[in-house]
Amino acid sequence: MSMNTEIAIGILGAILSSLSFLPQVLKIWKTKSANDLSLPTILLLAANAATWLTYGMLKDAMPLAITNAIMLSMLLIIIFFKYKFRKNKK
Amino acid sequence: MSMNTEIAIGILGAILSSLSFLPQVLKIWKTKSANDLSLPTILLLAANAATWLTYGMLKDAMPLAITNAIMLSMLLIIIFFKYKFRKNKK
Repeated sequence: MSMNTEIAIGILGAILSSLSFLPQVLKIWKTKSANDLSLPTILLLAANAATWLTYGMLKDAMPLAITNAIMLSMLLIIIFFKYKFRKNKK
Repeated sequence: MSMNTEIAIGILGAILSSLSFLPQVLKIWKTKSANDLSLPTILLLAANAATWLTYGMLKDAMPLAITNAIMLSMLLIIIFFKYKFRKNKK
């Protein structure tokens, strides 16, 4: 792969990663329900994002840090929503 | 960071990433319900895992490729479950 192709794929990946949890946040907000989401999965994804955020900051890899800061923020919102809407059981 | 610390963090990250969707797969299997999961989010995560899997194979970065192959497999199972259990609406 050429360097330009790699950078283009990297930017595309960063945008896709950053946005990936946005539809989930909007869906929970709309339905006020997050019962089907697995809390261990959300916590593992958040731990993973926090790890990459730390790694990105230590290595001065800002695109990595920013992408994972956005993902971590959305995951924290999902955790908050899961707590907030926990009583809406069927 | 020393090289050993970096490798240790890398292995920890790979294991956490690989396992992160397992609790979600088990939860859907147990409850037969995946209505609250956002399909666009799952598809974006799957596209992201497929991209990293391809990148890992092109770069001969096997830990990256294997981690993302496992994540992609679990995400495909979740997509299948979401389709299979779609009638279990409240």
